[in-house]
Amino acid sequence: MLEDFKQHFKERFDYLNNKQLLIAVSGGIDSVVLCYLCKMCEIPFTMAHCNFHLRAEDSIEDQVFVEHLAKRLGVDVLVKEFDTETYANNNKVSIQIAARELRYNWFESLVVEGKYDYLLTAHHLDDSIETFLINFSRGTGVEGLLGIPEVNDYIVRPLLIFTRDEINQFALEHNIQWREDYTNAQTKYLRNKFRKLVVPILKEINPQFSNSFLDTISNLSDTNQLAKDAIDFAFSRVARYQEDGSIIFLIDEIKKLSSPKAYLYEMLKPFGFTAWKDIIHLLEAKSGKVIYAKEYILLKDRSVFVLQKRTELEKNK
Amino acid sequence: MLEDFKQHFKERFDYLNNKQLLIAVSGGIDSVVLCYLCKMCEIPFTMAHCNFHLRAEDSIEDQVFVEHLAKRLGVDVLVKEFDTETYANNNKVSIQIAARELRYNWFESLVVEGKYDYLLTAHHLDDSIETFLINFSRGTGVEGLLGIPEVNDYIVRPLLIFTRDEINQFALEHNIQWREDYTNAQTKYLRNKFRKLVVPILKEINPQFSNSFLDTISNLSDTNQLAKDAIDFAFSRVARYQEDGSIIFLIDEIKKLSSPKAYLYEMLKPFGFTAWKDIIHLLEAKSGKVIYAKEYILLKDRSVFVLQKRTELEKNK
Repeated sequence: MLEDFKQHFKERFDYLNNKQLLIAVSGGIDSVVLCYLCKMCEIPFTMAHCNFHLRAEDSIEDQVFVEHLAKRLGVDVLVKEFDTETYANNNKVSIQIAARELRYNWFESLVVEGKYDYLLTAHHLDDSIETFLINFSRGTGVEGLLGIPEVNDYIVRPLLIFTRDEINQFALEHNIQWREDYTNAQTKYLRNKFRKLVVPILKEINPQFSNSFLDTISNLSDTNQLAKDAIDFAFSRVARYQEDGSIIFLIDEIKKLSSPKAYLYEMLKPFGFTAWKDIIHLLEAKSGKVIYAKEYILLKDRSVFVLQKRTELEKNK
Repeated sequence: MLEDFKQHFKERFDYLNNKQLLIAVSGGIDSVVLCYLCKMCEIPFTMAHCNFHLRAEDSIEDQVFVEHLAKRLGVDVLVKEFDTETYANNNKVSIQIAARELRYNWFESLVVEGKYDYLLTAHHLDDSIETFLINFSRGTGVEGLLGIPEVNDYIVRPLLIFTRDEINQFALEHNIQWREDYTNAQTKYLRNKFRKLVVPILKEINPQFSNSFLDTISNLSDTNQLAKDAIDFAFSRVARYQEDGSIIFLIDEIKKLSSPKAYLYEMLKPFGFTAWKDIIHLLEAKSGKVIYAKEYILLKDRSVFVLQKRTELEKNK
């Protein structure tokens, strides 16, 4: 795994050379293995640990474990303690959401302050497969079926091509210690169903399933890129920016597209529209008809749609 | 279900009015229910039954059952008997493939002869979900994740929005008899794993899973259409038909595309190319380098690729 990691890192993340890297370390096996891999590849990094204080002694022991690990590896460690329950109550969100928001707000602040450039997280291939299945179970579009993104703004996930088994194996071989992480138990309950019951069937039917999954999401990612190109192209054909900041859509040109509904959906999504049925009907509606989104309105004016920002007055209506 | 079927048929298959329709009837619950639904909606049809003679008495009893059903419903029935094992041996294919080929060859001949226009089959939503999962387990692209197509040339599948449970329920309510079909047991073994073990979990996690699945494949189908548009657009930008029948691809234009690899893959797929790594390397290769497909060759000639049909001489090389 070490050689594969080294090669993968060189191929895909060469731009991280000489950047200031953080690794999010819970103390769980995945993040601890990521630290060891980086250390063994002589990739410099700083550890970042969140203490959510959700499990009394356990949370404190996690923090102590991570601090010891940092000392053993000879790297710096940042620790942030949160009052997660108060945050959840104040913001009326679940404990999981609170922990997530606190975690990423802190990481982002570290990056925004400029001392660090990227955050590495230890998500792996099985996390990605489970995310695919969770999204699929709920109903989704192509972006929900791309698994976990390898790069997302300042967050980089260099373990996404490795399975949970490979990570376990590496930890065993190198006699690496870790702590079990129970914080996000509820999310894990749903994930566990897929992990324990569904993924084993997929792997039994196709022993190469993990690699096949990587092929599948690579194919879907290509298709998604092509679809985005088509939307850009269609937009340039049917839309005209006006001097007053509004955008005119030419209805006759929209109707010439292979799927007016799909294109309208994708072209208007960035402006916050959700009333898709109304929008489709707008193609045939009377002049003067208007559809409202939070920040924008779409007006049918004879042969065109006019997309404009809503005024403060309109918003209060 | 009857009302939903009537409305779905009217919305999606209005063009089948006054056409000569065949229904493929095995005698199993799905095809028998489809016959009853059509009969109750006063859609005229002829039944078509294949006897593959694979299960001795059972195959004969299936045939007798279907002939009686036709009489009861007052419709015509066509029956074709096959020597499936001989065909499988002669053509060195599995029994399942043999049955499939024989079945569709016969259906196609019936349509080609012109007396019939369309063949209806009784595939339903759970078949489609299982097909998605089977393809996903093996690794696939977006087209493998669209489930079973509703229309495919002369084949139309009007039950794809109904679940197995709805069909069972309808058969019970209307006291409909059917015969179990064991012919394609091996395919069913794989399907059964998904049916019995995976789909129940998806439905437990999301009780609306069947509807969510319809949304998912509708979204993917839109994305697929957009991607196809992008390929057509890219083709018109990078490719030039020549008078001698060859096609010139402009390498500089290909490199300007958002994902040259994905576009080249899609643009060359129809010509039977499979050596994708070679083709990507061709972008940077020396002039004169050639890649062979079964019927075509692709030649790098300075700033362009030239795509030509292979001569008989070349093919025998």
